[in-house]
Amino acid sequence: MPDLTAYIDGQISRFQKELCDFLRIPSISTNPSHAGEVRKCAEWVASHLHAAGIEKSEVIETDGHPIVLGEHRISEDAPTVLVYGHYDVQPSEPDDLWTSPPFEPTVRDGRLFARGSVDDKGQVHMHLKAIEARLASNVDMPVNLKLVIEGEEEVGSKHLGAFLDKNAERLACDAVLISDTGMFSPDLPCITTGLRGIVYTEINVYGPASDLHSGSYGGAVVNPANALATILDGLKDDRGQATVPGYYDSVRPMTERERADLIRLPMDEETLRETVGAVALGGEEGFSALERMWYRPTLDVNGLLSGFTDEGSKTVLPSQAMAKVSMRLVPDQDPDQVVEAFEKRVHELAPEGVTVEVKRFHGGAPWVADTTHPIFDAASKALERGFGAPPAFIREGGSIPIVQVFEVVFDAPALLIGFALPGSNMHAPNEWLDLSVYRKGIEALANLYGGLAAGL
Amino acid sequence: MPDLTAYIDGQISRFQKELCDFLRIPSISTNPSHAGEVRKCAEWVASHLHAAGIEKSEVIETDGHPIVLGEHRISEDAPTVLVYGHYDVQPSEPDDLWTSPPFEPTVRDGRLFARGSVDDKGQVHMHLKAIEARLASNVDMPVNLKLVIEGEEEVGSKHLGAFLDKNAERLACDAVLISDTGMFSPDLPCITTGLRGIVYTEINVYGPASDLHSGSYGGAVVNPANALATILDGLKDDRGQATVPGYYDSVRPMTERERADLIRLPMDEETLRETVGAVALGGEEGFSALERMWYRPTLDVNGLLSGFTDEGSKTVLPSQAMAKVSMRLVPDQDPDQVVEAFEKRVHELAPEGVTVEVKRFHGGAPWVADTTHPIFDAASKALERGFGAPPAFIREGGSIPIVQVFEVVFDAPALLIGFALPGSNMHAPNEWLDLSVYRKGIEALANLYGGLAAGL
Repeated sequence: MPDLTAYIDGQISRFQKELCDFLRIPSISTNPSHAGEVRKCAEWVASHLHAAGIEKSEVIETDGHPIVLGEHRISEDAPTVLVYGHYDVQPSEPDDLWTSPPFEPTVRDGRLFARGSVDDKGQVHMHLKAIEARLASNVDMPVNLKLVIEGEEEVGSKHLGAFLDKNAERLACDAVLISDTGMFSPDLPCITTGLRGIVYTEINVYGPASDLHSGSYGGAVVNPANALATILDGLKDDRGQATVPGYYDSVRPMTERERADLIRLPMDEETLRETVGAVALGGEEGFSALERMWYRPTLDVNGLLSGFTDEGSKTVLPSQAMAKVSMRLVPDQDPDQVVEAFEKRVHELAPEGVTVEVKRFHGGAPWVADTTHPIFDAASKALERGFGAPPAFIREGGSIPIVQVFEVVFDAPALLIGFALPGSNMHAPNEWLDLSVYRKGIEALANLYGGLAAGL
Repeated sequence: MPDLTAYIDGQISRFQKELCDFLRIPSISTNPSHAGEVRKCAEWVASHLHAAGIEKSEVIETDGHPIVLGEHRISEDAPTVLVYGHYDVQPSEPDDLWTSPPFEPTVRDGRLFARGSVDDKGQVHMHLKAIEARLASNVDMPVNLKLVIEGEEEVGSKHLGAFLDKNAERLACDAVLISDTGMFSPDLPCITTGLRGIVYTEINVYGPASDLHSGSYGGAVVNPANALATILDGLKDDRGQATVPGYYDSVRPMTERERADLIRLPMDEETLRETVGAVALGGEEGFSALERMWYRPTLDVNGLLSGFTDEGSKTVLPSQAMAKVSMRLVPDQDPDQVVEAFEKRVHELAPEGVTVEVKRFHGGAPWVADTTHPIFDAASKALERGFGAPPAFIREGGSIPIVQVFEVVFDAPALLIGFALPGSNMHAPNEWLDLSVYRKGIEALANLYGGLAAGL
């Protein structure tokens, strides 16, 4: 049997060709008219799991799009790794902003452009090829593998939780490996060790019973839109910190390792500023942009509505004003405690003369990996072999609710290793995958399966 | 010839019947499908001017609805009073909230219910009948009369200014008498001696170039909706005063007479609170509600829009946020100076990391009558004879731009004497005119024409 590296080198152009076939299927999960393509894509994944050497692969029905399940058993005594990914993609619109058509994969400057190239078909395909390479080369496969590749990630993983619950025994595993995140540069692999949680609310301020003429009544009544501005401004202080009592009490300080890794990252705030197109970055005083995005909680207005909002002018004194306000939470903030304190604070800040209601929408707890678990060391070594550099531990400012679902259902650690480079246009036109990362990632993952066995 | 009072008493039931005919014509100026009714109403006014004894009456075309002009010359040496009113009405919707149909005048409890009963057909009709009574009774008519009754007041008097300019010589006058305002109780006639002006703006705050994911980027960039709240809150202080530099410098203090009249008014703040349906009144500290509505400037948010405003939640960090903000101005604030200082203040309050633009919409200067002019004393005596009490000088919180137009075009003082009682539902379902006010007002106006001669 060939050497692992040699096998991958020998097959890489076929791998890329196969990936292009995968990317040509417009598996847009949000669009009911594409349901047939989504199913076709699921079948493509199942057949390629089989082709990669996976013993059993199956397309399993849900009340939505199907889930593809792969199972490869080595031995009852071997640890089991569950790999999660998704084969569905975001819509491609606006199509006219794509340089090459979204479902005709095209290589330019070492990048493969196509919808789904990096989110998440490309990353799923790296696992398929890593498994194939490991099974076909002269290294053993020391772990049992289970693969759950769903078709509804881009529409909120609506049926995945129920599927995992129902199949908890069949899918029992010792670790969950998720490849749907990013890395910082082609030579710097990353493990995402923390995610922010969220509390999402709506504040409604009520003043007069109906809209009033701002001339006849202006000055006599408390304007709910002005009152809302007072509340929102009062929720943050001059240093950019939330004034919700106790808000920062349980924020976990950065570890030495996290701080060291942050310094390692080739992060340029000016590039970030250009990317977002703001005149300046800003936020909580005393923290860098990455710290503010990953390690610090936020309090952001997501929407505002009151009174007259069309072109021109209307002299209305509005009867109510609404704001959507969400907070991104970091370990170990508790969403329930935060929303309680937030609601109390909003009422404190409300001036007399108006009534205020706070609605609570979804909430989600922040997540942080226990990086003392031996799989982190094992994963680090495997990634270093693939990329020539040890991985950085990074975080993600958003939430990936399914991570906590996996950890709870299987009582197993989640390992988030992803390969999207900054600016790779996930959810936007001209999405791309770096082909050098694709190549290195396949080898790193092939090594990783072996490495994880040592950590489990 | 009969005595004036006796004449009115003898004819009052016919007057009311005629007013009902006037009110049955649905002269809704905003609705193009009602143009025929509007014209019919103009012709009704012209023929009833004639019937009242006015020498010449004419329906004059404009680019919109016609203007009715009446002219009655006594002598070249007599002073001339121009009476302004409007025969058009607001739409009646929502019709199902009317107790009796809007264009079927109905008397209940001494009130005549119909669209236009008080705004402004009823008040126009009081003038017609006052003129008729004065001409038909044993008192002389010592003033020349000109009447301008327009059909576009409810749609912004679009063609009146040009009409006045074009006919400035023909309409030359020594005083303008406008009956389109209110009074405080059936026994308390009122002269409106001040109107607030307005400055209307739109603030746009721009942050990132496009909406961002509030998880991925939240904390790193300045949120323009939060920044807008900071600006809006900063525009007012804890005492409810605007923080625009110099804002209060030219606010004219109340006169002794104004303060005395304010105390005379049967004003109950609890009733006002119930009328507007707020949990409490509020506003600038240290002033009563009437003072805040009439004698103090305001700074009100008229509209807010940013980010996601539908049902539910969307984790968007908005790229921009908009507020409509207007200020009601009082004598002697200057709209141009105010808007300059306002715009500067907005920019001062804007945090770093966002850009801010202020758009300026229409502005209008506040107006205050020169109550030392002898017509105010003359008008007061006439009103006292009609109502048994001297009038109170009151103000109006809104603007009536046409008042300044008349004063400028004719270089003549404007006298605002109106008969709408509080809660008479102008612009709302179940508009009504108090019939005792109608009766007293006719006699007061008939006396007023004589009185004005003494003051001119």
